Amino acid sequence: MRDRRRGRRTASLAAAAAILAGGAAARETGHEEAVARIVAEATTRGRSWALLQHLTDRIGPRLSGSAGAEEAVRWTAERLRADGLDTRLEPVLVPRWVRGEETAELTGALPRRLVVTALGGSVPTPPDGIAAEVVVVDGLEGLRALAGERVKGRIVLFNRAMGAGAFSGYRQVVDQRSRGASEAARRGAVASIVRSVGTLSARLVHTGAVTYEEGVPQIPAAAIAAEDADLIARLAADGGSPPTVRLRLGCRTLPDAPSHNVVADLRGRERPDEVVLIGAHLDSWDLGTGAHDDGAGVVMVMDALRILKAAGLVPRRTVRGVLFMNEENGLRGGKAYAADHAAELPRHVAAIESDSGGFAPEGFSANVGAEGLETLRAVAAALAPLGATRITVGGGGADIAAMRPARVPLMSLVVAGERYFDWHHTPADTLDKVDRAELARSTAAMAAMAWLLAEMPETLPRPVPSPSPSPSPATR
Amino acid sequence: MRDRRRGRRTASLAAAAAILAGGAAARETGHEEAVARIVAEATTRGRSWALLQHLTDRIGPRLSGSAGAEEAVRWTAERLRADGLDTRLEPVLVPRWVRGEETAELTGALPRRLVVTALGGSVPTPPDGIAAEVVVVDGLEGLRALAGERVKGRIVLFNRAMGAGAFSGYRQVVDQRSRGASEAARRGAVASIVRSVGTLSARLVHTGAVTYEEGVPQIPAAAIAAEDADLIARLAADGGSPPTVRLRLGCRTLPDAPSHNVVADLRGRERPDEVVLIGAHLDSWDLGTGAHDDGAGVVMVMDALRILKAAGLVPRRTVRGVLFMNEENGLRGGKAYAADHAAELPRHVAAIESDSGGFAPEGFSANVGAEGLETLRAVAAALAPLGATRITVGGGGADIAAMRPARVPLMSLVVAGERYFDWHHTPADTLDKVDRAELARSTAAMAAMAWLLAEMPETLPRPVPSPSPSPSPATR
Repeated sequence: MRDRRRGRRTASLAAAAAILAGGAAARETGHEEAVARIVAEATTRGRSWALLQHLTDRIGPRLSGSAGAEEAVRWTAERLRADGLDTRLEPVLVPRWVRGEETAELTGALPRRLVVTALGGSVPTPPDGIAAEVVVVDGLEGLRALAGERVKGRIVLFNRAMGAGAFSGYRQVVDQRSRGASEAARRGAVASIVRSVGTLSARLVHTGAVTYEEGVPQIPAAAIAAEDADLIARLAADGGSPPTVRLRLGCRTLPDAPSHNVVADLRGRERPDEVVLIGAHLDSWDLGTGAHDDGAGVVMVMDALRILKAAGLVPRRTVRGVLFMNEENGLRGGKAYAADHAAELPRHVAAIESDSGGFAPEGFSANVGAEGLETLRAVAAALAPLGATRITVGGGGADIAAMRPARVPLMSLVVAGERYFDWHHTPADTLDKVDRAELARSTAAMAAMAWLLAEMPETLPRPVPSPSPSPSPATR
Repeated sequence: MRDRRRGRRTASLAAAAAILAGGAAARETGHEEAVARIVAEATTRGRSWALLQHLTDRIGPRLSGSAGAEEAVRWTAERLRADGLDTRLEPVLVPRWVRGEETAELTGALPRRLVVTALGGSVPTPPDGIAAEVVVVDGLEGLRALAGERVKGRIVLFNRAMGAGAFSGYRQVVDQRSRGASEAARRGAVASIVRSVGTLSARLVHTGAVTYEEGVPQIPAAAIAAEDADLIARLAADGGSPPTVRLRLGCRTLPDAPSHNVVADLRGRERPDEVVLIGAHLDSWDLGTGAHDDGAGVVMVMDALRILKAAGLVPRRTVRGVLFMNEENGLRGGKAYAADHAAELPRHVAAIESDSGGFAPEGFSANVGAEGLETLRAVAAALAPLGATRITVGGGGADIAAMRPARVPLMSLVVAGERYFDWHHTPADTLDKVDRAELARSTAAMAAMAWLLAEMPETLPRPVPSPSPSPSPATR
């Protein structure tokens, strides 16, 4: 095993050298030397942790349209300008959903408070709430298997638990959160509650967006803690009085609000009109402080640009950082960027999103075809000092997905995110969950991959057009 | 190691046989056979889990004086009677503290909600709350080291984190929760906030009792999540604007309420006036459902009595189950039992409390002197099938501590409770945190130890009187 791996790595390094050789800068600064400088800057003088502390401690939650989101726009732009980057704010009109007071309780002789949170975008309940018997189903399939009269006038509890596998486990159950309300409403339900999608049962709620289907009544949609979902399921099954819940959600939707993407360029020395984009999203959910989701990605992008400058690495092509607004509940920033930069997208040679948390880097995923993956594997061999050499099929965070029709090679930073869904979208997504050294290494991986892609003489092959141009993002 | 241990165990088994031999029942039913029957009944037909499910799911939180606590009294007595045990309710007047709405927030340009809960017994804030700058201290020692003017008019945040070691770690920091408010008030503080005492940071709050010192102004006392305590500490340290918190607690203290201990006897066949007491506390905090604390102990006691009957084991002495009321915020049940049964206490040959959670059994702690410990080690060798042979110095749960002046040998069930303080006093102390098989094994350990102590011809040596008759209980 060990020998074979070493043999492969030596071959990769040779291939990487071949791919990266040729440019003036590459001759002046070999790619191994460049990566070494990046790693040194990120790990010894890196600012990713300090930036993340300010973003989460002093600014805090950054739900689109909120004061926190606007302060994040202002402050990140100010910091990027202070680092000498060509920085501008690009207008985005964002949805403005505001959480209100929210409670849920089991009613009956011994009433019981449930730990509840509205899903983002939910309509409110009447001020006195909605009280109804609960019918428990195992995901959307479980709902579809029920006779309609079992649902009419009731609250549906979607109780499919998230299995193992982090991102793949999440993708398998999140549809009950995003689409459950409309599926239940179509069958006459009066409200929809989902078991919090996550991997840690600590009476935590996991919020996230609900998407109402057009033409279907909009019913209130909330998430409850896994423990509370289990409790209701047991009460429904134990033959005693069936569980009845009163749900009160005071959330509301205000008119769309003006906001911005933050765009900062490190201008290329030879082909400035060719762009390697590195991105993350500036908005967050409102329960925690969005430390892993996606404060970590934001500070990786910010510090990666600074690191390249500080390391004296002026890339052949432009490296552009984009801090997208409104990933969580609208994707307006990603869509606005793709629309406003449509003319430029044919010269976007890659777009890399970091939106899987601030954990240790493992590599990158990409949608660049078999040949492109081989090229990337050769390039990524240079990231061996960071342990970030793994290249897999995938790519395309939610924000950069809008560039897919323009055939931009899309990539994602892949991290060791086994615990990501302990914290994702919960009140516990806070600074203490991020490890400083892991964050610095992932920052270095973003900077190094951006440098390598901006520097190599050739570009990655552009992917063939996808039959479904805007696939549903996996990690919202 | 292995051989030495085996040799010691063989010697212990022989000693146990000698200690346990002699009685008629012991001749009819050897102690190994008795333990085997107990284990079989507990693990194959045990009801501890089903009882715990009803207690936590259908009854729920059981704070003294609440409807849940009263239903727990009624239902446990009904079940014990149905199992054929001589059961009565013994009156206890309990404090009646009621939680109200409670919020805390960082004020300023970007206000931030904190996860907060009132400590049990706290006085309320005015309806608009108390807003003040926060001064952060490292436990009671940190407060004492501060100049008085740093505290006057401020909110004190006690931020000493719990270290490793479960119970020992808890004991080292819990004084800031129980006594911090009065220590702070004496120095002019307007409110006291404590970092949640626990081992899991998942934006969880840990409640528990606050004890106001006589003659010192009573100020509101609350706990916040570890993450929020860390946030405030960082804000206080980072040189920016000092953190200011608004705290609102709507709790109140009502007049004392009538309640009961539940006492159930399995009458001894030879010496019915000699009592082996097994106990746990029926009340719980109100945030979770008291599954580990102390629903698990309650169902161990209940099912242990049933198991002895079902296994056909009529003990030489009386085995008495006591479900104490009001351990968490007053100890009234334990005090009432000791007072009301004062005449009987000289014939209480042992009192065993289970109040460390429903984890796997490891053994027992006891305050019976060196000779008594040797006897207990010999006896406990019979619990080898349960892995519960470890006997250590200690003993004395909070409820049975009131029997210490009467020199009752006090014992505690010791369990593998490394995760106990992840859940203890939090909203997440719920049924799913208890493992069914572990609970059954601890139930068997309680039943078997009660049987062995009720059956052995001699009794344990009574401890010498303690210089401090009512030591502060360690696990409240």
